[in-house]
Amino acid sequence: MSRSIRVAPIGVALLGCGTVGREVLRLLTEQSAELAARVGAAVRLVGVAVRRPRRHPEVPAELLTTDAAELISRDGVDIVIEVIGGIEPARPLLLAALRAGRGVVTANKALLAECGPELYAAADAAGADLYFEAAVAGAIPLLRPLRESLAGDRITRVTGIVNGTTNFILSAMDSSGAGYAETLEEASRLGYAEADPTADVDGYDAASKAAILASLAFHTRVTSADVYREGIAEVSAADILAARKLGRTVKLLAICERVVDTAGTEWVSARVYPAMIPRSHPLATVGGAYNAVFVEADAAGALMFYGQGAGGAPTASAVLGDLVAVARNRVAGGYGPRESAYADLPIRPIGDTPTGYHVSLEVLDRPGVLAQVARVFAEHEVSIMAVRQTGGTSDYALLNNAEPGGAGATLVIVTHLAPDAALRSTVGKLAGLDVVRDVVSVMRVEGELR
Amino acid sequence: MSRSIRVAPIGVALLGCGTVGREVLRLLTEQSAELAARVGAAVRLVGVAVRRPRRHPEVPAELLTTDAAELISRDGVDIVIEVIGGIEPARPLLLAALRAGRGVVTANKALLAECGPELYAAADAAGADLYFEAAVAGAIPLLRPLRESLAGDRITRVTGIVNGTTNFILSAMDSSGAGYAETLEEASRLGYAEADPTADVDGYDAASKAAILASLAFHTRVTSADVYREGIAEVSAADILAARKLGRTVKLLAICERVVDTAGTEWVSARVYPAMIPRSHPLATVGGAYNAVFVEADAAGALMFYGQGAGGAPTASAVLGDLVAVARNRVAGGYGPRESAYADLPIRPIGDTPTGYHVSLEVLDRPGVLAQVARVFAEHEVSIMAVRQTGGTSDYALLNNAEPGGAGATLVIVTHLAPDAALRSTVGKLAGLDVVRDVVSVMRVEGELR
Repeated sequence: MSRSIRVAPIGVALLGCGTVGREVLRLLTEQSAELAARVGAAVRLVGVAVRRPRRHPEVPAELLTTDAAELISRDGVDIVIEVIGGIEPARPLLLAALRAGRGVVTANKALLAECGPELYAAADAAGADLYFEAAVAGAIPLLRPLRESLAGDRITRVTGIVNGTTNFILSAMDSSGAGYAETLEEASRLGYAEADPTADVDGYDAASKAAILASLAFHTRVTSADVYREGIAEVSAADILAARKLGRTVKLLAICERVVDTAGTEWVSARVYPAMIPRSHPLATVGGAYNAVFVEADAAGALMFYGQGAGGAPTASAVLGDLVAVARNRVAGGYGPRESAYADLPIRPIGDTPTGYHVSLEVLDRPGVLAQVARVFAEHEVSIMAVRQTGGTSDYALLNNAEPGGAGATLVIVTHLAPDAALRSTVGKLAGLDVVRDVVSVMRVEGELR
Repeated sequence: MSRSIRVAPIGVALLGCGTVGREVLRLLTEQSAELAARVGAAVRLVGVAVRRPRRHPEVPAELLTTDAAELISRDGVDIVIEVIGGIEPARPLLLAALRAGRGVVTANKALLAECGPELYAAADAAGADLYFEAAVAGAIPLLRPLRESLAGDRITRVTGIVNGTTNFILSAMDSSGAGYAETLEEASRLGYAEADPTADVDGYDAASKAAILASLAFHTRVTSADVYREGIAEVSAADILAARKLGRTVKLLAICERVVDTAGTEWVSARVYPAMIPRSHPLATVGGAYNAVFVEADAAGALMFYGQGAGGAPTASAVLGDLVAVARNRVAGGYGPRESAYADLPIRPIGDTPTGYHVSLEVLDRPGVLAQVARVFAEHEVSIMAVRQTGGTSDYALLNNAEPGGAGATLVIVTHLAPDAALRSTVGKLAGLDVVRDVVSVMRVEGELR
């Protein structure tokens, strides 16, 4: 490091001091000698902006301020770390920091997914660094590999379990056989779900992360509004059981994919929904509150990244990694690789995106039923990959309180890939058939080799 | 990228054109527009150095040369990619390239593990980039996360399955119950083992990778000579069976660990050996020729990186990722984060390193045997975690052709952590006891929470 020693310390402003901020503060203090060695200059905390200073006895009083904008503008601030979360006031504060040439490190996925292009543009115009490893999958080093390690390859697909709360709930439903409502209740009791779990269980959090991942993987601006989203509230014990019978398990997936249409045009599909994946898929064994992201690229093949997706210390670890990178860039007098959007691919609407479905039906047990059902699929140009018919005393029937020994049978159908809209109308039409007594489970299937 | 467009292309010299080199050439050609967009300048291949030009019809004739040193020295060469492998002539060529200020991208693990310090010093003195993501675990983005993403954290342990050949053999032995020799033969037939498999099965390849990983994780120069090494040739069907009975599986592990002695001094331990790990450990499910590396850090917790560890295309993907990074650094007029060795921790000899052992013994079936065996452990200050005794017709006995119904019993012992030398003398002493008829299996255990 002999050539790059710089006498002036790197000044850091910390915005926010909640669960993550406190851990950042701890690491900054405990690791200060290590950080200095890694950066090539001392790292000095200039101030900590919070709303209620009296609630922060852990921060030296002379560092506390309620005026974040003033803190950012102080002389000697090189890097701004934002761990406030949410859109306002984080957005104007970070834009001001970037415009003033400060490097920015943020863990704010909602802000990046909604206002990413504006922030990237401000960073680019000012020649300032904008790093956000902590925004997706917490401590898992993921954005840097996507942005840098795979920069010479062509990523075709990113499939992630990126929300710990929903993965905890689905893992618990899978092992206990319990329903959604009672499992959510248990997750809340154990601290794995927030008092208002909407952002997690309805897939908003995963959709923000999908937007960020798709932007990086495909060099295209993708915002959360571009991401198709379904949550897990409709996942039933019957769905989980149906998956188990097919050698599958249900996961809430964030999927970012290159889709080529029949005319050869390349699109980006970004979507979040619960889906059945084979139990042999590397993502299937990711249990509890862990996160993992499965990446497929032309030359690299299949890669997986696994770790803790949330929590104060893991998120702070990612923030500190970014801090060291931005600080090193400043010591060297430069900045890191920029975001890029040169590919600028169009976003594929969900209806046109090829997906595969699993459908379980309770049907009347009489000849010709399969033919009627198959005709509905054929009319929608949906091709069937596998079908299985079982007798009327199936556990689907029992689960749904059908009269025992009644004249029913269960039909389980898995389709080939077809446009999602076609699959959806097929299911709608099936529900209306006289011979179909009940649609027991409908769920997309993912994770097969395509 | 508006501020950083540079007119002059980035010139690349390719040294070697074997399995990896051909894939690098293919990606450079097929992805040239993408690469230019990602780098901010065109990437131009200046020449390809090979030993026998006539064997390379895939390379345009005007690019071929047999004089690698001359190619490196040509005007217009910014970056040298080395995929020759081995120490000579790669070492003097890369030193010359670095001294001339060329950026270097290499996949050469043997060279880095043996001569890393010399190369890092040359890169540092010249202010040139030296990148080598492809040297460990092929396409898996691992070095960059260790070096950059976790730069603000404190890594405590790195445990890796980093050799595909041995993992293929051990996975096959685990599923078939077959012995080592016949499984190696099958691996050779299927192309998973080289004609001379020594470097793989004796752990030399894994030891090179352990040296590189330990250097990065602990900011200390570690060379392959510092790595304790045992291969898999001694792993028997009895070992695999013993592991299975303990809910474990056998993997060849590269382990890099911080060890604190009783005086509080911090050491680095780097070692490669087959060990039993719990089947519930994330590494246990890594099968076939896949690689995976499990990283534990103070704040980030447990992380895992998984993917293809070898092969032309996956390795080329990692080389191209490095090429883009080095090229971007040159476009920006700087260079990336350097290696660092500021921690400079001493290397812990294996004898003093705490490990845990599993021992299975065939013993005489009479009172007082357990007491005698336990006394040997106690005399070496080795504490026993678990012991299990089973009757004389155990399958260990059958497997070893002990006379059926003979006066034998099996003792299975798992120890707590103790210095490896103490464990080794314990086992030596046990083998000499009158009451011990046979030492059926001795193997280290890893992967417990410490």
